[in-house]
Amino acid sequence: MRISELSRHTGVSVASIKFYVREGLLPNGVATAANQAEYGDEHVRRLRLIRALMEVGGLSVARVRTVLGVVDDTEAPLHEAFGEVMHGLAEPPLPDPPERLRPALEEVQTWIRSRGWTISPEAPAPYVLAGLIATLREFGLPASIGELDAAADAALVIAETEVQFARAMPDRTAAVETMLIGTVGYERTFAEVRRIVLEATSAEVDATITKRARGRAKRRAAR
Amino acid sequence: MRISELSRHTGVSVASIKFYVREGLLPNGVATAANQAEYGDEHVRRLRLIRALMEVGGLSVARVRTVLGVVDDTEAPLHEAFGEVMHGLAEPPLPDPPERLRPALEEVQTWIRSRGWTISPEAPAPYVLAGLIATLREFGLPASIGELDAAADAALVIAETEVQFARAMPDRTAAVETMLIGTVGYERTFAEVRRIVLEATSAEVDATITKRARGRAKRRAAR
Repeated sequence: MRISELSRHTGVSVASIKFYVREGLLPNGVATAANQAEYGDEHVRRLRLIRALMEVGGLSVARVRTVLGVVDDTEAPLHEAFGEVMHGLAEPPLPDPPERLRPALEEVQTWIRSRGWTISPEAPAPYVLAGLIATLREFGLPASIGELDAAADAALVIAETEVQFARAMPDRTAAVETMLIGTVGYERTFAEVRRIVLEATSAEVDATITKRARGRAKRRAAR
Repeated sequence: MRISELSRHTGVSVASIKFYVREGLLPNGVATAANQAEYGDEHVRRLRLIRALMEVGGLSVARVRTVLGVVDDTEAPLHEAFGEVMHGLAEPPLPDPPERLRPALEEVQTWIRSRGWTISPEAPAPYVLAGLIATLREFGLPASIGELDAAADAALVIAETEVQFARAMPDRTAAVETMLIGTVGYERTFAEVRRIVLEATSAEVDATITKRARGRAKRRAAR
């Protein structure tokens, strides 16, 4: 199909498609004339992935380029590729954690070992997590192993299904893409559900307090 | 304290402090001479909040301005303020959901009612959630009420503690700030823990598959 058809088919503007090609996120179409190129299903699929990463994951062009590089590197074993796409989603960790993060980082690493998990030493998640724990504590909010365990137990409910689901995809590219979209998609889904739950809980707590206050006022008036 | 001391105390550069003042995120210091201003503890606290929102929440300057506006509006009842800071974290929803999102949006709204929750009709979370569900399904990933219930049940474990914790803060500003940092901080924490769990699960699945394949090869060799 021509670039205009690709645009109609995916809802992505021609200008954006050209931008993604220039930025190396989308392969060029096959040139058919001086000023014309032909695009195929692989372009539709790739465009859909780029948009999902940007819109759902909030990823920058540079981050998208990094994770697409992993998707396209068919040499790496599947498990390594799964790890690398997830690592590619985060900003690379500082080589030497600042003093402020060191105690939290040690706690996180001890916790990971105590749960019997193996992750790559290059995984940025423990560093990011240490920063989050330090920030929560600076604001007086609880951030202990109890909180981490609760989050992990919730994640474990669907983690194996998710990994097996990705592995069952018809080809390697689809498997890595699925792992990638699952990672960013479900974490945003959890976050939005959490916001709904927090607002509903706040409404319930508020209603209970108002009801109690009314009850007290009534009893006082009855005396 | 002078601006240079405020910078040393918070680790935020003088240029960034001046930028936040210009952008209306941080109040001006009290002018003490033509080219000098005095900053206090409220500036330290506000700077810490701005940085946490940007670094933990990944919020843009415009979003930070919106949520700080809610923190500073002491007229609104506390429960409303809790809702509004959470709404301020998301991009405002489109007034009319595109056709693509309508079925998912109806499912989300029916689900919220079935759980007996009350949230503001202005809450953007159901719209964002509908978009996420539509995207996950486009990639063939499961996004049913079962997935939403699992996420909600995990969130409910700490939601009431979190709301009560914020309400117990010594003043209204601290209560709203706590709700805000708790919302962005715990959702990022959950996401990072999930990445660790996924990578560890992928490693376990991979090890099991490799072991089984080795077992099969051995049995074949023994025949």
